[in-house]
Amino acid sequence: MNCLKRLKHVQEYIIKKNIDLLIIDDPIALTYLTNLHLSCGKLFIAKDKIKLFVDGRYLQVAKSKAPIDVELITEKSLFDFIVQNSIKTVGFDSDKLSYNSFEKLKSFIDKINASNQLDIKLTALLDPLKEFRVIKDDDEILIMKKAASLNWRGFEHICSLLKEGVTETELALQYEMFVKKNGAESLSFDSIVAFGKNSAMPHYKTADAKLKLNDIVLIDIGCSVEGYHSDMTRVIFFGTPDPMLEKMYAVTKRSQGSALKMCRPGSKLKELDIACRKVFKEENFEKEFVHSLGHGVGLEVHEFPRIKFDSIDKDVILKPGMVITIEPGLYVPDIGGVRYEDTIIITKDGYDNFYSS
Amino acid sequence: MNCLKRLKHVQEYIIKKNIDLLIIDDPIALTYLTNLHLSCGKLFIAKDKIKLFVDGRYLQVAKSKAPIDVELITEKSLFDFIVQNSIKTVGFDSDKLSYNSFEKLKSFIDKINASNQLDIKLTALLDPLKEFRVIKDDDEILIMKKAASLNWRGFEHICSLLKEGVTETELALQYEMFVKKNGAESLSFDSIVAFGKNSAMPHYKTADAKLKLNDIVLIDIGCSVEGYHSDMTRVIFFGTPDPMLEKMYAVTKRSQGSALKMCRPGSKLKELDIACRKVFKEENFEKEFVHSLGHGVGLEVHEFPRIKFDSIDKDVILKPGMVITIEPGLYVPDIGGVRYEDTIIITKDGYDNFYSS
Repeated sequence: MNCLKRLKHVQEYIIKKNIDLLIIDDPIALTYLTNLHLSCGKLFIAKDKIKLFVDGRYLQVAKSKAPIDVELITEKSLFDFIVQNSIKTVGFDSDKLSYNSFEKLKSFIDKINASNQLDIKLTALLDPLKEFRVIKDDDEILIMKKAASLNWRGFEHICSLLKEGVTETELALQYEMFVKKNGAESLSFDSIVAFGKNSAMPHYKTADAKLKLNDIVLIDIGCSVEGYHSDMTRVIFFGTPDPMLEKMYAVTKRSQGSALKMCRPGSKLKELDIACRKVFKEENFEKEFVHSLGHGVGLEVHEFPRIKFDSIDKDVILKPGMVITIEPGLYVPDIGGVRYEDTIIITKDGYDNFYSS
Repeated sequence: MNCLKRLKHVQEYIIKKNIDLLIIDDPIALTYLTNLHLSCGKLFIAKDKIKLFVDGRYLQVAKSKAPIDVELITEKSLFDFIVQNSIKTVGFDSDKLSYNSFEKLKSFIDKINASNQLDIKLTALLDPLKEFRVIKDDDEILIMKKAASLNWRGFEHICSLLKEGVTETELALQYEMFVKKNGAESLSFDSIVAFGKNSAMPHYKTADAKLKLNDIVLIDIGCSVEGYHSDMTRVIFFGTPDPMLEKMYAVTKRSQGSALKMCRPGSKLKELDIACRKVFKEENFEKEFVHSLGHGVGLEVHEFPRIKFDSIDKDVILKPGMVITIEPGLYVPDIGGVRYEDTIIITKDGYDNFYSS
């Protein structure tokens, strides 16, 4: 990962936003910008100076590995950076900072203002790195394909274990062991394995149901490799499908295809969701699709943007390098649910699906 | 769990704090007060009325299981609750609410004020449930002992697998599989298995080091059962101990014993840490103990209070029912580290150790 290039982009961003200093202290953002794994620390990005502040636990490793200046974090070292670099406006990520931490930051700035007769101001920024993180570079794409391929192998592994009497929990654990033995560092989320009617709950908590002949099996799984996540859902008919669920499955796949057709540079996110919902509407299933069409994936399994016709990101335009899920689903209480989820990357003239079958 | 009793205590608390409404939306706090597992939702606790607001996904299950009123979450339903119950002050958890969510809450309240000519005020509260959650009731103690006992069995399991050439990662994965097969729902944190010099890093990230004869092995593990966490650290000498590490181990155990002697109702937290550090000082090891003595454990693996002579909680007084870790450690770069961590519960006249050996 070229962190220096990323940091350069952030410096250009703060100049455009008229901010003298951006404070980054979210661990994932720290990893993105320094390639270090820190549970805490503060990255100060000014227009022409960058410094990473860490505590004693991380000082040695950060100094030897970070491509930027590193200093021990103390009130004085942070104070000095702000005063010596003539900072007048300080930006922070309002989505990641708790209100309590904001109050601490504010009283720290007030103290600097009082003791140096300054008038430094705080500016709330909502997810300031999102525009950068949403476009994956070649290294990131390679890792994400690796995570997706491992996820798929984990899926195949649990498919091979489907038999009457096996429990949801057993399959979820088998998936986890398989991917962890094969290089995943963690699950991207609690695996969902739902048998029969349990599949009707979009956020089902995997439990001890036993597989019965003719059950539908919904599997929503993901694992992370080198910090990057994967995410995929499939349903399997174990035996003879219920005709209603079979129809829901066919309609869901068709609606996904309809959304995928819109996946190319220039499309607005809402257009994908509208295309999908149009199919559901034609089949009188619009009320059974109760969630978003998808979301960005990367260092977080759910990250910017959220894909829905009425979401805050609805007018975001697809660009090459964006990695998103497309996951329509239909849920009918007491009958069951289906969801079909792929993770794709937008390419120069269309998209590439991380899952080919 | 008697949620109604807990809610009653929170109502008494807000009366004392002169707050008309406390908003709870942290998932762990929601579980504590409703016994439901919700990824989102808002619990409104007023002086004489309580209501849980959830979205469509959770409405059915919440209505059937919650011991309190449940309503669909909409702007109108929240608005109506505030106006109909003559709320004048609204408290929120400043540690859990992001600055961005605070701004949304503020503009929501501003809107109510404007349209109803009211003057409702917001009050930031830092971890408002901590005084309740810190005292575990009998049900919680039973579950926490179950989690600790499973953790110990997981420890014994990996001890049986120690042999030259085994990797840290393999042992960590074996621990995880063992506890998950035996009823743990998740790990409490990424397991730390550190061989040789790696043990010198208090927050070591388990990697692919292979076990060599005469290595020290540091194992810091925990798993959760029914939402409650466990946490324990042991070191094992695989072969002949390095004399320096052997001495550090003896001193650490002695310092822990010294802290444990202070573990009884009435002691201040700082007294535990001071007792421990006194032993280190006598042995000229004070600089090698670089972290807190311990922390609370419960629905979170690190929760209130933090045990250190200079922490914000230093004057907190031990009471029966508090569950805390006591975990002194010594770390010498390029040589290795030792840590000895137990989780204990304060009893009427002393403490009970969840780990007996």
